[in-house]
Amino acid sequence: MSVRFYNCRILTMKDSNIIEGELWTDNDRISYIGPSVDDSDKKFDREIDCKGNLLMPGLKNAHTHSAMTFSRSLADEYCLDDWLHKAIFPREAKLTPEAVYWYAKLAYAEYLAGGITSCFDMYFFRELTAQAAIETGFRHVFCGAANDYGGFDELEDYYNSLNSLDPLVSFIFGFHAEYTTSEDNLKRMSDLAHKYEAPVFTHISESYPEVEGCRERYGVTPAVLFDRLGIFDYGGGGFHCVWFTDEDREIFKNRGLWSVFNACSNLKLASGITPVYKFIEKDMKIAIGTDGAGSNNALSMFREMYLDTVLSNVETHNAAAVDPFTILKAGTTGGALCMGLNDSDVLDTGKKADIIMIDMKKPSMQPENNIIRNLIYSGDNSIVKMTMIDGKILYEDGNYTTIDIDEVISESNKLLEGLA
Amino acid sequence: MSVRFYNCRILTMKDSNIIEGELWTDNDRISYIGPSVDDSDKKFDREIDCKGNLLMPGLKNAHTHSAMTFSRSLADEYCLDDWLHKAIFPREAKLTPEAVYWYAKLAYAEYLAGGITSCFDMYFFRELTAQAAIETGFRHVFCGAANDYGGFDELEDYYNSLNSLDPLVSFIFGFHAEYTTSEDNLKRMSDLAHKYEAPVFTHISESYPEVEGCRERYGVTPAVLFDRLGIFDYGGGGFHCVWFTDEDREIFKNRGLWSVFNACSNLKLASGITPVYKFIEKDMKIAIGTDGAGSNNALSMFREMYLDTVLSNVETHNAAAVDPFTILKAGTTGGALCMGLNDSDVLDTGKKADIIMIDMKKPSMQPENNIIRNLIYSGDNSIVKMTMIDGKILYEDGNYTTIDIDEVISESNKLLEGLA
Repeated sequence: MSVRFYNCRILTMKDSNIIEGELWTDNDRISYIGPSVDDSDKKFDREIDCKGNLLMPGLKNAHTHSAMTFSRSLADEYCLDDWLHKAIFPREAKLTPEAVYWYAKLAYAEYLAGGITSCFDMYFFRELTAQAAIETGFRHVFCGAANDYGGFDELEDYYNSLNSLDPLVSFIFGFHAEYTTSEDNLKRMSDLAHKYEAPVFTHISESYPEVEGCRERYGVTPAVLFDRLGIFDYGGGGFHCVWFTDEDREIFKNRGLWSVFNACSNLKLASGITPVYKFIEKDMKIAIGTDGAGSNNALSMFREMYLDTVLSNVETHNAAAVDPFTILKAGTTGGALCMGLNDSDVLDTGKKADIIMIDMKKPSMQPENNIIRNLIYSGDNSIVKMTMIDGKILYEDGNYTTIDIDEVISESNKLLEGLA
Repeated sequence: MSVRFYNCRILTMKDSNIIEGELWTDNDRISYIGPSVDDSDKKFDREIDCKGNLLMPGLKNAHTHSAMTFSRSLADEYCLDDWLHKAIFPREAKLTPEAVYWYAKLAYAEYLAGGITSCFDMYFFRELTAQAAIETGFRHVFCGAANDYGGFDELEDYYNSLNSLDPLVSFIFGFHAEYTTSEDNLKRMSDLAHKYEAPVFTHISESYPEVEGCRERYGVTPAVLFDRLGIFDYGGGGFHCVWFTDEDREIFKNRGLWSVFNACSNLKLASGITPVYKFIEKDMKIAIGTDGAGSNNALSMFREMYLDTVLSNVETHNAAAVDPFTILKAGTTGGALCMGLNDSDVLDTGKKADIIMIDMKKPSMQPENNIIRNLIYSGDNSIVKMTMIDGKILYEDGNYTTIDIDEVISESNKLLEGLA
């Protein structure tokens, strides 16, 4: 498959410039970005007149639980601890691999409609999820989710099998969180990281009680604990990072670890507001995720990026506390690098063709005082006109090419009965 | 024009029930809501198979400055005071009536795409704005915006002329704010309210410095001052209400005044977070608005409703601080009653046909654990399939019936040059 996009504007994300011209793809890669060239001999499978619309790298959802779409709007009245133990864990015990397959497909439909081209997914029944991803054509990076209830025995198997299954699928070590993982299991995690010289990710400092609990158990914060245990010796990072201390940020900065923000989930579960500006002041590595639909409840990177930009303003009394382009970088390039997708970070010749088209005819994108600010401050899923992953167009003008949305919706509702 | 919607689900907003059946319109009114009836003799201009999609009242944008679309993404680095004096006022001095006409049309395009069927608009060059509204078919309620720089001399004329111009257009008394209006002019405002026995609206307690300034000038908060001056003797209310004291809430509660929330603008300008839950605890009259595109930057009621629901959670440490249905009521019924649109508040026989259709095939609306929560927690402009005002379909599947969007975009960008 080769596609020629012409009459485009292109935001490569290598910098904040927007160039005019063409972008060509050849199979899974970008083969050309630049001015229009007169090369009528060159044949493409498809030529798309972009009519001035904007091409940019797909958004990267750097922390999610995709199949938790089953729990959207199911239990919106609980704070984190009650939400997990009263609403989520009892239903997850009833989830089947088949259910996870369908609820993951529902998530992919939402990702594609929102311009998301890859996700960093922490969930179980990975075989069926991988099948759903490959059928959809979605770029899916699994994150380990081991804790004391299970998962440590299988981490190594998953690491080896999922990293050789399909180019669309990969696996990175991870465990659920300090408060669900014993010190012995944390040491197992560290041993695995050392054996494979591999990064490790985990939920970290999401709620204040979590950090206090860790202090009671170990006398230190989760970040200090994991650092001491050598878990982060080969990189990785943490999800949420709401209650980081300055010392935690110092550790993450010095080790080059990723801080992944989840603003909507933290608001919804009353966990708190991450002081994003403090991470940017220290020039830390940052990425953005939606968390699962049970605690968000949307899977919209636009809503996340908007909130990561504006939520710091009130605390700092500064309307310019966070720069929009820095957040757009976190939502695209940052997410890709965080997930190990080093070829999906920016648009460039030879890079993966993970591309979205923004509909500049949407009124919220006009006028064009500043297109990047329009994206961050006014963007939502309605501005996504096309989503391409690995050189294949999977979503265009509201239609899916690999997902039967009627079937996914029907199965998603039928399967609810088994979880009640 | 008569339309039969069949195979629908209908959220009338009279309560939170969702019924299945049909909705018919006859000219500007709803003529029937109820089960499918076998009445093949009945003829309609158009019959729409809703395929299970949801009809509900249009969203009401209860505080905005529509034509400020010119300033979207123009000056995102300023707090309220600097933003007004350094970025906005100098450009507004250069705005022409023609420019306001086009920028209002751009706002209408965005309102329609986001399911908004009426706006409560505080801006100038009202004749051309009214023309744009009438051409578009948009229901536009003007709010007076008088202050010491002008407007008081014309308030009465506008009140009389705009309230008799067209069924789509109306005018309600208003002034800009305490900090731009002398005590003499505030008394003029009060005199007009008494002469016409009419409600009055104004910006109120938007920023902390504003409230402190009023305390220095008068020894009391703006709400107490306006109350003492008799400005609210015939009702009305205020926009923003971020820094209300308990006494301010007591005054608004006792007088039945409307508190209109503008969460996005308050975040963006670093003004603060309104404790929405305190207004709901007192069972006060509440409505929701986007404010203008310069300080939002979107004109999305979905984003406002989402934030009004979740932003109280962190302060209260309570994930259920604000009930989503209460906010959906504020965004529909509340807004309508606040603007005096007593026939656009709910869906019912005899009410105005100001109706939107929600696309239940959008993945963010699935599965259907709870449709109202899906709307509030996952909704954005992408779920709006159709917008009807006064019985006319103005937006459907991304297309406008009365707006030439290419022309509006072209004019909106051309006109920027005159403002630089």
